[in-house]
Amino acid sequence: MSDVFTHPWLGGLFGDADMQALWSPEAQLAHYTAFEVALAHALEAAGRVPPGHGAAAAAMLEACVIDPASLAEDVTRDGLPIPALVRRWRAADPAHKEAIHYGATSQDVMDTALALTLKSVSGLLAQRLCTRDGSLGGLEERFGDRPLMGRTRMQAALPIRVADRLRDWRAPLAAQARRLDASHAGVERLQLGGAVGTRHGFGNQAQAIADAMGARLGLSAPDHAWQSDRGGVAHYAACLAGIAGTLGKMGQDIALMAQQGLDDIRITGGGGSSAMPHKSNPVLAELLVTLARLNAGALSGMQHALIHEQERSGAAWMLEWALLPQMSCATGRGVTAAQALCERIEDMGDR
Amino acid sequence: MSDVFTHPWLGGLFGDADMQALWSPEAQLAHYTAFEVALAHALEAAGRVPPGHGAAAAAMLEACVIDPASLAEDVTRDGLPIPALVRRWRAADPAHKEAIHYGATSQDVMDTALALTLKSVSGLLAQRLCTRDGSLGGLEERFGDRPLMGRTRMQAALPIRVADRLRDWRAPLAAQARRLDASHAGVERLQLGGAVGTRHGFGNQAQAIADAMGARLGLSAPDHAWQSDRGGVAHYAACLAGIAGTLGKMGQDIALMAQQGLDDIRITGGGGSSAMPHKSNPVLAELLVTLARLNAGALSGMQHALIHEQERSGAAWMLEWALLPQMSCATGRGVTAAQALCERIEDMGDR
Amino acid sequence: MSDVFTHPWLGGLFGDADMQALWSPEAQLAHYTAFEVALAHALEAAGRVPPGHGAAAAAMLEACVIDPASLAEDVTRDGLPIPALVRRWRAADPAHKEAIHYGATSQDVMDTALALTLKSVSGLLAQRLCTRDGSLGGLEERFGDRPLMGRTRMQAALPIRVADRLRDWRAPLAAQARRLDASHAGVERLQLGGAVGTRHGFGNQAQAIADAMGARLGLSAPDHAWQSDRGGVAHYAACLAGIAGTLGKMGQDIALMAQQGLDDIRITGGGGSSAMPHKSNPVLAELLVTLARLNAGALSGMQHALIHEQERSGAAWMLEWALLPQMSCATGRGVTAAQALCERIEDMGDR
Amino acid sequence: MSDVFTHPWLGGLFGDADMQALWSPEAQLAHYTAFEVALAHALEAAGRVPPGHGAAAAAMLEACVIDPASLAEDVTRDGLPIPALVRRWRAADPAHKEAIHYGATSQDVMDTALALTLKSVSGLLAQRLCTRDGSLGGLEERFGDRPLMGRTRMQAALPIRVADRLRDWRAPLAAQARRLDASHAGVERLQLGGAVGTRHGFGNQAQAIADAMGARLGLSAPDHAWQSDRGGVAHYAACLAGIAGTLGKMGQDIALMAQQGLDDIRITGGGGSSAMPHKSNPVLAELLVTLARLNAGALSGMQHALIHEQERSGAAWMLEWALLPQMSCATGRGVTAAQALCERIEDMGDR
Repeated sequence: MSDVFTHPWLGGLFGDADMQALWSPEAQLAHYTAFEVALAHALEAAGRVPPGHGAAAAAMLEACVIDPASLAEDVTRDGLPIPALVRRWRAADPAHKEAIHYGATSQDVMDTALALTLKSVSGLLAQRLCTRDGSLGGLEERFGDRPLMGRTRMQAALPIRVADRLRDWRAPLAAQARRLDASHAGVERLQLGGAVGTRHGFGNQAQAIADAMGARLGLSAPDHAWQSDRGGVAHYAACLAGIAGTLGKMGQDIALMAQQGLDDIRITGGGGSSAMPHKSNPVLAELLVTLARLNAGALSGMQHALIHEQERSGAAWMLEWALLPQMSCATGRGVTAAQALCERIEDMGDR
Repeated sequence: MSDVFTHPWLGGLFGDADMQALWSPEAQLAHYTAFEVALAHALEAAGRVPPGHGAAAAAMLEACVIDPASLAEDVTRDGLPIPALVRRWRAADPAHKEAIHYGATSQDVMDTALALTLKSVSGLLAQRLCTRDGSLGGLEERFGDRPLMGRTRMQAALPIRVADRLRDWRAPLAAQARRLDASHAGVERLQLGGAVGTRHGFGNQAQAIADAMGARLGLSAPDHAWQSDRGGVAHYAACLAGIAGTLGKMGQDIALMAQQGLDDIRITGGGGSSAMPHKSNPVLAELLVTLARLNAGALSGMQHALIHEQERSGAAWMLEWALLPQMSCATGRGVTAAQALCERIEDMGDR
Repeated sequence: MSDVFTHPWLGGLFGDADMQALWSPEAQLAHYTAFEVALAHALEAAGRVPPGHGAAAAAMLEACVIDPASLAEDVTRDGLPIPALVRRWRAADPAHKEAIHYGATSQDVMDTALALTLKSVSGLLAQRLCTRDGSLGGLEERFGDRPLMGRTRMQAALPIRVADRLRDWRAPLAAQARRLDASHAGVERLQLGGAVGTRHGFGNQAQAIADAMGARLGLSAPDHAWQSDRGGVAHYAACLAGIAGTLGKMGQDIALMAQQGLDDIRITGGGGSSAMPHKSNPVLAELLVTLARLNAGALSGMQHALIHEQERSGAAWMLEWALLPQMSCATGRGVTAAQALCERIEDMGDR
Repeated sequence: MSDVFTHPWLGGLFGDADMQALWSPEAQLAHYTAFEVALAHALEAAGRVPPGHGAAAAAMLEACVIDPASLAEDVTRDGLPIPALVRRWRAADPAHKEAIHYGATSQDVMDTALALTLKSVSGLLAQRLCTRDGSLGGLEERFGDRPLMGRTRMQAALPIRVADRLRDWRAPLAAQARRLDASHAGVERLQLGGAVGTRHGFGNQAQAIADAMGARLGLSAPDHAWQSDRGGVAHYAACLAGIAGTLGKMGQDIALMAQQGLDDIRITGGGGSSAMPHKSNPVLAELLVTLARLNAGALSGMQHALIHEQERSGAAWMLEWALLPQMSCATGRGVTAAQALCERIEDMGDR
């Protein structure tokens, strides 16, 4: 099996290569490395390791090549890849091993990698949503003045203009983009807590080390760890679901408009049928509905993951691992599918 | 049947009288009336009705007494209470009936009532969360320096202080309070769109009327209707779920701390057992977990409701009616239960 | 607040009086009493109490009048109503108090009451689904031969007959009825376990007592308690959601058929609009979609409740209390709404 | 990105190679081919194609090699792989192309492939659950008589035996296995409906063709298509979630038992920590909880997919594509993880 996003043929429909790249094992490994590099430098700057040792460890880390698949067996045992990575890194440079992972724990590495990933996800989505807004603006210019039957509760109500319908797709998406933007602060944060979240290994230099790491990584450095506080991540997930849901509304509208009998829209290049060559199915419009409902369900799991017991919950944390990448990919594909769909609109409203 | 919140005996556990009052039929009727009063005045100010007619209609509206139960039969037919209300109001003052509901539609009334309700909900929660923060601060003063075994992945890890555990309950809740605060703008908005959301009945006075209504009602007056854009409401729901989830984490922690063998907390007045008089069950701690999971599930439905087709979706809108009041009450009760629970804490950590 | 099912006016749309009566506090109290009556008789038959004491206690129990609201305060403390009830019952007949609740625990009483309730729920649903099937049969007789455009992926495909569409509403519902029927065995079971589910208070008479109680109550008497095994209840909930979902498909179809432009169905007595007197909204069809989605979300919570830790989980059990009555009422109302909707169909298909 | 099940290193924890193989693109292509082979033979047997043409087409189909990735572009356009496959198959043997896909539609092929897949899934799970039951039986033999503190509502209640706890893991799983077994009939069904589900291309030979195909494929041949009736599939999904949920309860129990202070279980080979070499985390126990919650959430989506509008819903159907394979893999991994976990149990209960 592979999931619908990476499936060899379903990936043609569900896939979002750029988004998937942000979550790729290679990208995650690079983020893990970046965390340790930042830590090594910060330890040196704080005088926790001899001069030069931090830089040497950092150089080794950046040069070290890890085969993702080689970690599987360790993960079967440990439940996460960091212990095995740390062993390898330390073995690769025993002379400077005290600059590697000192005072940190697996969750520090993985949550910081998550923060870096979500920062990229936000950037990609923001850029696409901007394009998307322009594209809806283009439709408004072309068809905005056309009349269209307004429909409420699935019934013809009163005539509106195409521009009215488009505004109800466009303004909500802009609002969702603003919500996503406001949610950055809650996730673009260094995670640094050590074994039980108290930064006990760093003494009174803890915040200085965190600040240095944050500056290097482009993340904020909060004054304590957030390992058991998943509110920022869950809130971010709600923003992803919000974008997908808003696009789902547009998709549902377009699928309804495309019905013969309503004929409110004409789309080129719809999906072919194996039984009826004449059909042109509004596949991308339907896909938007599917992606919205996928994220609506996944968000529920992210909220359950807020119940993150004690100083670290394996069960709740792993739930995030399964859900958040998929929510990102579903949202990302929602935006590209919406874009592709709009580009195929040949006509809207009544002439 | 009644639900757990209003159930004659389960309401003793799940109920939140103050929160429930905000959603009571009487409160909703008062908000519906307030909408029509604001509209009547605004119509008069805009010269849409003869001088004095708006004020006269408003006076009638404020004096009119409606028995909630008398609307049930109409709702069976119409699916919502506003058509019947408008008929009654107009019949009560035929001379000024043109100042009642002119240019509006049921959703304008009901969504504006929702906005007013959520404004009150936010106020109540903000006040309680502030108290709650103080209460956690009090626990920190009393027990913060005590040692406590830090536990990760359900395993003893390293000693921490009670203050560390408390910080992981307190800081996330403050962050959730800030998220709720930031979500106000998306819901405290006048809804005014008319039959198909275009404000067509008001001509070029639409915004002036909306501004006047918003000012009177204490809501913002956006420049277009948001009847099919449920993003603000769904986002608000995510904030409610976030609060409940953060409290659920605390509840789970306390239930774990109360285990014999860990004995990290002592709570007075726990729940009695019918079979074992010696037991003292951490009922309120468990309740916090239950309420968090209830909201996690309900949030999923609120996200599905984003797929609000065309100019108004009966199916998606009704889903909100069923879910949002319960989410509010679950969140509200979460805060009062957490407060009561903290007040019963007699001891924390090791001596 | 009250929920949509019992709300003074929304209850006109969402309410199902017969179903709600099965879950009423009075009905639950009657079931609690029936459990204790059965236990008292069984204890006497087993010789655990002196001859006549069981019957005397049973007579007292049946005569005892409890005001539901009087239990609220106890439930605030204990988290459930049974300890207070047992205190009152024992106080009402101190001479026979050893025949009351002996060897049992709160969950025995409440889960057995649940079993009795679900038995009634199943009976009510089975009867209604049978009527429902006849009603769809009637539509087939009247309109089955009419042509109708078959639609796939929201696009006109090839003509079918009305009978084809009706079959796709009717056969799945019959299958759901069979699934519900098959799920009875998993829930219509006596719960009898005592404090930790081991029936330790009954010695080697445990099964004899359970058998006698089951026979009196009309429930099976499994050979061990199922207090932490919620599989039967969760499965039952899935059957409820299945019925509601199948009706939701019919509702969605009818709402689509009722669109102007398709005009595949004509329904009398649709919902009125406050802004457009000419409209006739397919309110009941939309309601079916709403109820299906409500149950789809609630089912998720029932599945989370399977994670019922140790010998009894307060948190997971309380989640069921909140969700299962509502799922029953949503399903029940789905069937009555579908019935009412079918009765209002005046025309289907093309002439 | 890849999902947790196929991720290069997380797959070491979440992966289930045997289950994933059943859902692999190669397996699906083989099932698609099997459908067309069965159809070709059945068409010949029914005299719908000249003698020998069906067999010739079948031979071509079985010999034809398709590169899964080569279908991606077609799926981007068509939304599903069958139209492109049919084009290739027909091009590969133009002389017998009338025996390929005649009277069928994409959903017939894909749903029949689903039926074949779920049949294999059920077989794999049934076999594993049987092993699992034996393994729990083995624990009972070794540790069943040991005392253990029974715990209710997270509180010590009364002593039980290890056998009591084990029974509450074992009996519910056996019940879930029976539910899964009973759900086979609803999914192991040939799908054959043609463009709009009416089998119109087959005239009065429709059932004969269906019967012949069913016999060859090892599936039942219902008397009408079930393309818009997803009740059987959703019910199957509920059974998958039920198994995972029941295992989640066991996982939660074991994680609680493993706490220092309770020390009710000793597990060898727990997960290592990067910060605390002395720790042994109950990773597999936590994983069971995660998988249970994943499936609880996914089931909600499968229930939403019951609202499958008209003769075929793209949006609802695609939701199943995303959810059902993952639910299967999560359930499958749940069983193997539970098995591995039990094999690592070195001690249970008090001595």
